[in-house]
Order: sequence, then structure tokens, then C-alpha cells
Amino acid sequence: MATAKLLVILVALVAGSFSSCGAWELNNIRMPTARAMEQAAALLLKRAADDVAAPVIHALRPLVGSAGDLGRRGGVPCDSWRLAVEAYNKRDWKTVPARCEDYLGHYMLGGHYRRDSAVVVDEAIAYAEGLKLAGNGREVWVFDIDETSLSNLPYYAKHGFGTELYNSTSFNAYVLEGSAVALPETRRLFRKLISLGIKPVFLTGRTEDQRAITVANLRRQGYSGWMNLLLKPVGFKASAIAYKSGERQKLQDAGYVIVGNIGDQWSDILGAPEGARTFKLPDPMYYIG
Amino acid sequence: MATAKLLVILVALVAGSFSSCGAWELNNIRMPTARAMEQAAALLLKRAADDVAAPVIHALRPLVGSAGDLGRRGGVPCDSWRLAVEAYNKRDWKTVPARCEDYLGHYMLGGHYRRDSAVVVDEAIAYAEGLKLAGNGREVWVFDIDETSLSNLPYYAKHGFGTELYNSTSFNAYVLEGSAVALPETRRLFRKLISLGIKPVFLTGRTEDQRAITVANLRRQGYSGWMNLLLKPVGFKASAIAYKSGERQKLQDAGYVIVGNIGDQWSDILGAPEGARTFKLPDPMYYIG
Repeated sequence: MATAKLLVILVALVAGSFSSCGAWELNNIRMPTARAMEQAAALLLKRAADDVAAPVIHALRPLVGSAGDLGRRGGVPCDSWRLAVEAYNKRDWKTVPARCEDYLGHYMLGGHYRRDSAVVVDEAIAYAEGLKLAGNGREVWVFDIDETSLSNLPYYAKHGFGTELYNSTSFNAYVLEGSAVALPETRRLFRKLISLGIKPVFLTGRTEDQRAITVANLRRQGYSGWMNLLLKPVGFKASAIAYKSGERQKLQDAGYVIVGNIGDQWSDILGAPEGARTFKLPDPMYYIG
Repeated sequence: MATAKLLVILVALVAGSFSSCGAWELNNIRMPTARAMEQAAALLLKRAADDVAAPVIHALRPLVGSAGDLGRRGGVPCDSWRLAVEAYNKRDWKTVPARCEDYLGHYMLGGHYRRDSAVVVDEAIAYAEGLKLAGNGREVWVFDIDETSLSNLPYYAKHGFGTELYNSTSFNAYVLEGSAVALPETRRLFRKLISLGIKPVFLTGRTEDQRAITVANLRRQGYSGWMNLLLKPVGFKASAIAYKSGERQKLQDAGYVIVGNIGDQWSDILGAPEGARTFKLPDPMYYIG
């Protein structure tokens, strides 16, 4: 009888150990439910508001992992797709491939995105700390806002992580809630730069009519002390590269030295004057040309 | 007695199932031995020489996998480090972090590198097929050589996948063997472009004194029909960006239209005139500024 019991335990162990093999080898890993996603987003919001230093998105980690091999069902492997986006090989895309929704959910919420962002910011800080400043207070650093200074992950988690076509109505309604959360890595850079004497300048594709809510959202998320918040005039027609390059040119013409420039889109950091050094944060959810 | 036997089998199963959980959760995954690596390199060579269409590096796949989470022992996670390299956030580095040797070995030999390269080339081919050519035969496409048209993986597999400091003596000795293998993805692009009427131009940091062996190596690996092979004059002192931009400018001045440009280094594809569209192949093993 004891042996039979042992057998049962062993069988359970076998089964258990197989099921603990992780997302890596299995196809039936499920994303957290929509409800779990909302809870995660709420947690993210709360923690960001509390300015907790601990990694915000880790709550979901045990559930998910960040397997490089998820999302291979037909078509381009999702991790190769993501790399192609980050290295600017994939351009002018409208939506994330539908089969990559699970993969991207894991990536964005499972800690992988945060780790990748942290490495970029560590590089940026090392670079900034190595600069010899002129001491005249003319050095500035350009920050994009969406998916750079503020994260709209609570929105995108409810909208397929970029697999749904961009909907300006619902996205703008979300922006007007002012509930975006800080990307803690970028905020760390922002604060470090101020302590070094480099002035942050926000340069965003958000429009002038969103100024008040954007300021409120930034302050609520722990940003303060920026030199400038440059928003796009309502109805202004130009590519992101043309618009942002033009604004950087104006900064230079006014005597400022752009020592750094950070954004999640290549259109944030391409186009002269780019800034002395550029940094590309990950963003596999959408493309702005 | 039969139960005892069953027990033994079950215990073996439990142990086996744990050990089959994959690289993902375990720290004790070993890279293939140096001998296995040499065999893989030899296989790679042989298959490339035979022009076999099947993915060349797959032979090692069952052993290794391409886990995004390998190589986290202290310091920056190796997959985040690699992404930072590919997105040009990490610059001017001399060697791959020592702790990432295993990770990079898995990446380079486990199929992941090939998958990532294939996606880049698929994009390049889709772009090329969408071009409206002038019909005057003036459209050219610039190809880098090392880690773009030819792979030096057999060399780097024996030299720590970039964790060892670059040794020009041993690397040049390897180049003079003429034994580099085609990166099959790039060769596919090369042939497609010729069939479309776009002329390939090789532009490489290899020096003029390596012309004969470079031509022999390229031909042996299935490349033929290029318009030009541009090598650097011996002793020429300039950054890769300055040198390569200058050569592209000469092409333009001679009336050619550079419709595309592909390389594994950012210095291959930055610096005006870049070419109408650039493609960055993965290369986490070394950096050329």
C-alpha cells in the first residue's frame, strides 16, 4: 500500500515536473486573462504612483517568463520579428502580427521589456557621466514621451499589444485620462541628468491641446524640473522625423547643445541634428514613421 | 519485484524529465565541446560548399536551443546586451562579456542567428521586389563581406565567440585560408538582386592585398556576377564610416543609384550617402566603429 502511494506521488512528480518545464517547450501556455491583465495594469499604476523602486511589472513574472521561442506559429518567429523592428530593418508596419500577441504580452509584462530598457538606460547614464560639461548650462537632453518617459502599457494590454489597428479616438481618450505610468528606467535617467546639470527637454508627437493633461501626468509620475515641453501644433502636418528634427534644430539655433536624445521610435532619433548620442528604447507595439 | 522495477523506471523518468526541461531553467547547460564545435564548423563548411539549401547550423540544434534567458550570471543579461548591440545603443565595445560566451555560442550555432538573419533578408527582398527600376542598369546594392556575405563563424567558434580580444594576426591568417562560409541568407538576397537587374557591389574593410583570396573565397561559396569588389587600400587610415561613406559617394558620383545597403555593423550603413534603404544583419560577436 505504501508502495502504491509512493507510486502515486512519483506519477504526480513526473507530471508536475513536465508541466514545470516552462513556456519554452510547450505550445499551450496561455496569456494571463483580460482580468489578470487589468489587475496587472492597476498594480503597475499603483506602484508607479507610490514610486516604489521595485520592478513594477514583476508581479506577473512567475506566470509568464520571456521565452525567446514563443509565438512561432507560422510566419516570422516573433522574437526575430521584434529584433527586426528594434534594429530598424522592419519599417512602416501597421500592426503586430496577430500570432505574436501572446509573445508580446509575455515580453512586455514578463520582465523582459524592463530588462532591455534598463540596459539602454544604463548605457545612457554611463555616457552622461563621462561627459565633460562646459559649465554654462547649455547642455540639454531630448526625451520623447510615449513609451519613453511614460508607458501606455495599461492601454496596450487591453488592446492586443499592438495587434489591433491604432485607434486615435480610443487612444486619445486614454491620454486624456492622464493615467499613463512612468517608465521607471527613463525616470532614473531623467533624474540623473538633472543631478549632473544636463537639462531635460520633452519633445513629443502629442499635440498642444494635450499640454495640461500631459504636464499633470508627468508630474504625477514623478517627473519635474524639465526645461521645456515641446508639443506639436494641432493640425501640423509633417512626418515625425521632419517635425522632431526641426524642433531640435531650433534648440541648437538657440544655443543649446543636444548631448543626448532618447526615444522608443527610430523617428525620434533620426534626422539631423540627432543629438551627440542617441538611445533607442524597445517598443515592439507600434511604429511611427 | 515488478513494482520495484516500475519504481526505478519512474525515478528515472522523473530525473529524465527534469533534465529535459531545457536550458531555460537550468544553469548547468554546457556548450558543445571544442571538438563538437570544430565538427560543427566542418559540417558548416561542407554543407556550404555543397550548397545545400537546408539550414546549415541546425545540426547542433537539439543540443542547444536559443533561450532568451541564458547567460544571466551577474551583470547585464546577455539577451539584453545583444539587443543593445543590435539597436546601436551599445557602442565602442571591445569584447563580448565573458559570461555571455555560452549564450552567444547558443545564439550563433543554435539556429537563432540564422532565423534573425532570414527575417532581415526577407525584408530586403520584399523591398527590392517592390522597387520600380529605371531600366538603365544604374541601380546597385552594397554588400559588406565579413559576417554579411561570408561568415567567419568557424573562426569565432574557436575563439570564444567574441569574448577574446580581436587578434589581427590570427584572424588575417584565417582570412588567407579562404575558408569562410557563405551566409546563405545573404547569398539568397545577392542572387535575387541579380535576377531583378540590381547590381551587387562588395564594399569591405578587407584590404587590397587580400583581393585574390577574397575573390576565390566568394566564388567558392557561390557568389558570382558582382559589379565591383571594393577593398581598402593597405595602410589607409580612416574610420569605417568615413571610408565606406566615401566609397558610396564615389559610386553615386559615377552615376549609380544605391538602392540598398546591407551589413552587420552600423558603420556599414551609417554616413551619407547611406543608400536608399539599409539593412542591419545581426552580429553580436564584434564591433567596428
